[in-house]
Amino acid sequence: MVRNTSMMKLKVFTDQWGHLVPVEENHTIPFDIKRVYYIYHVEKGVRRGFHSHRELQQALICVHGEVKILTKTPEEELTICLNNPSEALLIGPMVWREMYDFSDDAVLLVLASEPYDESDYIRDYSVYEKEAKNWLRSAQIHDIPR
Amino acid sequence: MVRNTSMMKLKVFTDQWGHLVPVEENHTIPFDIKRVYYIYHVEKGVRRGFHSHRELQQALICVHGEVKILTKTPEEELTICLNNPSEALLIGPMVWREMYDFSDDAVLLVLASEPYDESDYIRDYSVYEKEAKNWLRSAQIHDIPR
Repeated sequence: MVRNTSMMKLKVFTDQWGHLVPVEENHTIPFDIKRVYYIYHVEKGVRRGFHSHRELQQALICVHGEVKILTKTPEEELTICLNNPSEALLIGPMVWREMYDFSDDAVLLVLASEPYDESDYIRDYSVYEKEAKNWLRSAQIHDIPR
Repeated sequence: MVRNTSMMKLKVFTDQWGHLVPVEENHTIPFDIKRVYYIYHVEKGVRRGFHSHRELQQALICVHGEVKILTKTPEEELTICLNNPSEALLIGPMVWREMYDFSDDAVLLVLASEPYDESDYIRDYSVYEKEAKNWLRSAQIHDIPR
């Protein structure tokens, strides 16, 4: 995995009444849930994301269908296919991400540690690269607890 | 609508990159998001729920497919069909709910105001009915802000 990212297996409660996956803040995932959003009806060929956050932590869960997530730092990159509602991709600060190959029926659920704040976004890759290199140099332990 | 429930239209950000619906705690919805869960792969004929909460507030959003929700108090009942990711059904305290007619591809997302607490559940309808009647009698304004 790319630094500051991790995959988490979520517990599924399965019985004759169906499947239920609970995610509790500061328990299942290591941060507050301040904001939730979901992305759907993304057409073939669309690639979105193209940003990093300075502080925000997120958990990405593909609750229906399938989507690919590119995670990237100046040092490494990894593409992850999310297609299982019981898997969460945790992304911490200073990770570039792009989302693509959404299936027609994909619903990508994102749980975020802070309210929306445009100043937390870095949308220009060259700006990101410079900030990330400095950040990574000064970082002691930045990895998300697993 | 049944007392202590309301339907909320959520803002959808739509562009050539798809649809995105954000839900922020104490902003889009009138409570903290402490816990999130989602229900899926519910087989035909299954009816689930059959409980009320004493304190918990929830927002129910069908992010894919379709599901029917029965909301009920000792005074009234209403069945709502959720089939639109931009609609949230808010359910406050002391409302009995049952969920049924899940489509094969249904994903029901629930945002909850508190962590899981078994003591907040009322699972026996006759117990619920008694508590709810007392609660409704003593209630001044219990309706969820719209």
